[in-house]
Amino acid sequence: MNKKEAIDYCINLANSANENEIRPNPFVGAVIIDEADQVIGEGYHQKLGGPHAEVLAIKQALKKITDLSQCSLYVSLEPCSHFGKTPPCADLIIQHKIKKVVIASLDPNPKVASVEKLMAAGIEVEVMNEPSAITLNRRFFTNQLKNRPHFILKLASTIDGKIADCAKNSQWISNAASRQYVHDHLRANVDAILTSYKTVIQDQASLTIRNTTGGIQETNVVIIDKNLELLQTQYEGLPIFYPRTASKIILITAQAPSIQLPENMECITGTFNEQGLVFSSIAAKLLELGYYKILTEAGSQLNSSMIQQNIADELYWFIAPKILNDQEGISMFGIDKLNSLDNAYHLELANMQRLQNDILLHYYFK
Amino acid sequence: MNKKEAIDYCINLANSANENEIRPNPFVGAVIIDEADQVIGEGYHQKLGGPHAEVLAIKQALKKITDLSQCSLYVSLEPCSHFGKTPPCADLIIQHKIKKVVIASLDPNPKVASVEKLMAAGIEVEVMNEPSAITLNRRFFTNQLKNRPHFILKLASTIDGKIADCAKNSQWISNAASRQYVHDHLRANVDAILTSYKTVIQDQASLTIRNTTGGIQETNVVIIDKNLELLQTQYEGLPIFYPRTASKIILITAQAPSIQLPENMECITGTFNEQGLVFSSIAAKLLELGYYKILTEAGSQLNSSMIQQNIADELYWFIAPKILNDQEGISMFGIDKLNSLDNAYHLELANMQRLQNDILLHYYFK
Repeated sequence: MNKKEAIDYCINLANSANENEIRPNPFVGAVIIDEADQVIGEGYHQKLGGPHAEVLAIKQALKKITDLSQCSLYVSLEPCSHFGKTPPCADLIIQHKIKKVVIASLDPNPKVASVEKLMAAGIEVEVMNEPSAITLNRRFFTNQLKNRPHFILKLASTIDGKIADCAKNSQWISNAASRQYVHDHLRANVDAILTSYKTVIQDQASLTIRNTTGGIQETNVVIIDKNLELLQTQYEGLPIFYPRTASKIILITAQAPSIQLPENMECITGTFNEQGLVFSSIAAKLLELGYYKILTEAGSQLNSSMIQQNIADELYWFIAPKILNDQEGISMFGIDKLNSLDNAYHLELANMQRLQNDILLHYYFK
Repeated sequence: MNKKEAIDYCINLANSANENEIRPNPFVGAVIIDEADQVIGEGYHQKLGGPHAEVLAIKQALKKITDLSQCSLYVSLEPCSHFGKTPPCADLIIQHKIKKVVIASLDPNPKVASVEKLMAAGIEVEVMNEPSAITLNRRFFTNQLKNRPHFILKLASTIDGKIADCAKNSQWISNAASRQYVHDHLRANVDAILTSYKTVIQDQASLTIRNTTGGIQETNVVIIDKNLELLQTQYEGLPIFYPRTASKIILITAQAPSIQLPENMECITGTFNEQGLVFSSIAAKLLELGYYKILTEAGSQLNSSMIQQNIADELYWFIAPKILNDQEGISMFGIDKLNSLDNAYHLELANMQRLQNDILLHYYFK
């Protein structure tokens, strides 16, 4: 097994985890390879608070041989060197005198400095900058490097980029398969859904997760509502206010409310300017509250504003095989500020798939 | 081989043709199957004026057996029954007393009435309405049923549906692979390229075919130019006026010019209204001149107008991984007429492919 194969093996292992079980931790996979080039131990991080990938791999290897001093450890992310929920993996590696450690991507957390620690202990360390290892942990890297949630935009549009017609009707642009995909693969895999009070009212949105079997699951929602419009009595009956047992509504507002908020509702105050919410004013707070990965399902204004503020990290775009051909239809993006092709926002195509006659394109923002 | 397999076989055969060699004829494939269920003859229409698929299949079968009276003929399109460039295939089938004829799709040309002719001669005839046989000949069916060219729209846009920025710059939205695809697979396979005088000027377009090896091939161009703007002296040097040896420029105008047109240039007069050209006023004339399949490479106005007039038959849409996020960017479609989601134009997704980081979606208009 060459280096690339060993790292791919680690990444595949890492990917076996359900991110909902590990967040805010990253995906990690590790293998121990012996002198004879055989995999004698492997593991991946499976559960928040549970053992790290390296620990599992070393444990498995120790069942086969007791001396790991001629073995190499391959790991998709830099091992931890500090006491978190578990003891430092770097210490365990040093303890077992593993000969060589190959790391596919560095941990951006400054508390993690195991490369130095391992080298100081006489272990040969090789650090790669493997793109697939970085892609694997985009959400984790956003959290660590930008100290904010990882934001995923979800949009369904016609071919001509309209997310609603001139009467603001958007039900339904995409087909049933696309809509089910949103429930199963997007809403079900984030910490909260972000939207605006306007969308909540306009779409009569409940933003729950509907299983294919018809079951309903709650989600946390973060709603931008500068003037706390949703607290008006007339909106009490909105679907978003279903009885919650395991989820919250976070209102992002300009001023804290003077009244006592209902149970399961919280307020974060942020800065607003003419274009709306200034994300940098609330992003760290959202992370602090445990919202590491947020899905935005909103209108043109919020989508565009997030792009302009460089706060959008991924895009899931469903394209329905329809054309409105009406310049008054509601566009997916577009603000009142001139932009040239040379200064366009660039994305990287991650994946494409067909959902009956709809297309789903998945992009990363660069 | 069951019926479906035999028809698929015919369609595959038919597809072996280069459409540029057969246009305006349709793609046709045929097989002769004997009593023992063996293919003993096959053929496809290869060249305009050359033998039809049925003739080739029968000839090949006759080399193996002389009596075809226990054989079946499967054919992707109804055999001809009239004298065109070759004698009627129906007569040949009758002459050889073929037992059964299975036809995957009928020929809409009223001069073709072989089903009746074959049945009158005592031949068993089965007519299917096989979708893949109809898809195969979309261009031919448009020509026959609508008495007009088959129009293919080609667009390259950003994710937010912009075909140019606010300064009308569109060079280049799509990547080099996408642009080469246009030359190799779109421009190279049509009778002419349709555009507007505005695009010709704005893009300094030559609309030639650039081979991957750097060679340049001429194309016919049809330019909508109501007031013959392009005949002004200031435009003499436009790239579109390169010296032509094997192609023409057709100007579609409101009034025939009073001056003598340069060589290789022709004029068609059409009706114009406030929205621009009324396509029904010139469509039959274009067909008559031998333009059976036309690629539209134009701006928002012409694209939108063709959709509104239900004259667009296919769409090739290149999506670049960029977002302009500027409401003043030039949209791919959109006219000044309100439309609701319920009345959106519907398309059928034919194909999707990735060209590096660009996406190409191919649709048929319904």
